[in-house]
Amino acid sequence: MPRSIGVLVHPGFQLLDAAGPIAAFTAANRFAPDAYAISVLALKPGPVTSHSGVVMHAARLPEAALDTLIVAGGVDWRALALCARTQAWLRTAARQARRVTSVCNGAFLLAELGLLNGRRATTHWERCAELARLYPQVRVEPDRIFVQSGKIWTSAGITAGIDLSLALIGRDLGEDVARRTAQELVVYHRRPG
Amino acid sequence: MPRSIGVLVHPGFQLLDAAGPIAAFTAANRFAPDAYAISVLALKPGPVTSHSGVVMHAARLPEAALDTLIVAGGVDWRALALCARTQAWLRTAARQARRVTSVCNGAFLLAELGLLNGRRATTHWERCAELARLYPQVRVEPDRIFVQSGKIWTSAGITAGIDLSLALIGRDLGEDVARRTAQELVVYHRRPG
Repeated sequence: MPRSIGVLVHPGFQLLDAAGPIAAFTAANRFAPDAYAISVLALKPGPVTSHSGVVMHAARLPEAALDTLIVAGGVDWRALALCARTQAWLRTAARQARRVTSVCNGAFLLAELGLLNGRRATTHWERCAELARLYPQVRVEPDRIFVQSGKIWTSAGITAGIDLSLALIGRDLGEDVARRTAQELVVYHRRPG
Repeated sequence: MPRSIGVLVHPGFQLLDAAGPIAAFTAANRFAPDAYAISVLALKPGPVTSHSGVVMHAARLPEAALDTLIVAGGVDWRALALCARTQAWLRTAARQARRVTSVCNGAFLLAELGLLNGRRATTHWERCAELARLYPQVRVEPDRIFVQSGKIWTSAGITAGIDLSLALIGRDLGEDVARRTAQELVVYHRRPG
């Protein structure tokens, strides 16, 4: 049974926050066939316009538990963070999922739900001070590519979602598959912070 | 007037080949407002399914000249390379564009049209030998992140499209904007080969 990877997007999302992890998990499937089933998810399913103007298709929010939830960032994260329906789904999805992760300022959505309270976490370097100010219970670690705190993994800006995904792939399938996935994508297997 | 960036995709395209450059040119717009107008293009406009299964929306192939044409790679590049309508459009678009570029095995489409004949070029490291074998008139350079030959720029695998885009942004808007764009995306400004 493939592990289900759900990437949550919203209008104005950062395209690469979603596309980086999607490409990484897809590439891993080449070396470990059917390891992952990847889907893009949105509160309003159908076409979702990213900040770049490019449109990606999203499926509806699933009721079944995800293996790994990935929350993409974007310019209008606040509207999503404060949306009651999104919050309700995210709360349940985060409880059910084996792992909950964020890319870039997707961390703000997790923080808004209190999921990062008392935890170490990171976000885009430009937003670390803001995350710490808005959510003083979060132990923000700037200058990190990603941070694991229990089942919650947060990552830094944009392309750091690829590094995060390689780390998750390494945990799931071993470092050899993660290394081959990195080579396939032509990225470093482990970047320093 | 913004420079028009057209990213050519096809069914089975590599999502990150397209999303990387789109994110880079979008980020550059933050530091040089309206520098770029970015569009995703396909022979058959509308939803185009990438190799990952994720769907991106594409506009129809434009008649007006593009500033920069970016040809994304993918698993089924051969069908596209041999499609007469695509070839006809690509030939005209390549002649009209100020710059013609490829990411990953998008280089094979340019090679099929003869656009790389007598030129230095690169592609994904796994495909360099195949490119040289199929198109002996191309001077394939493995181990390069990107190669410029006149108005034609080819880049290596997948994430190398980001490096290529940063180089183009540097040429267009100066190295300061390229450096800030790289910082925004959390990537190196210049990666070695």
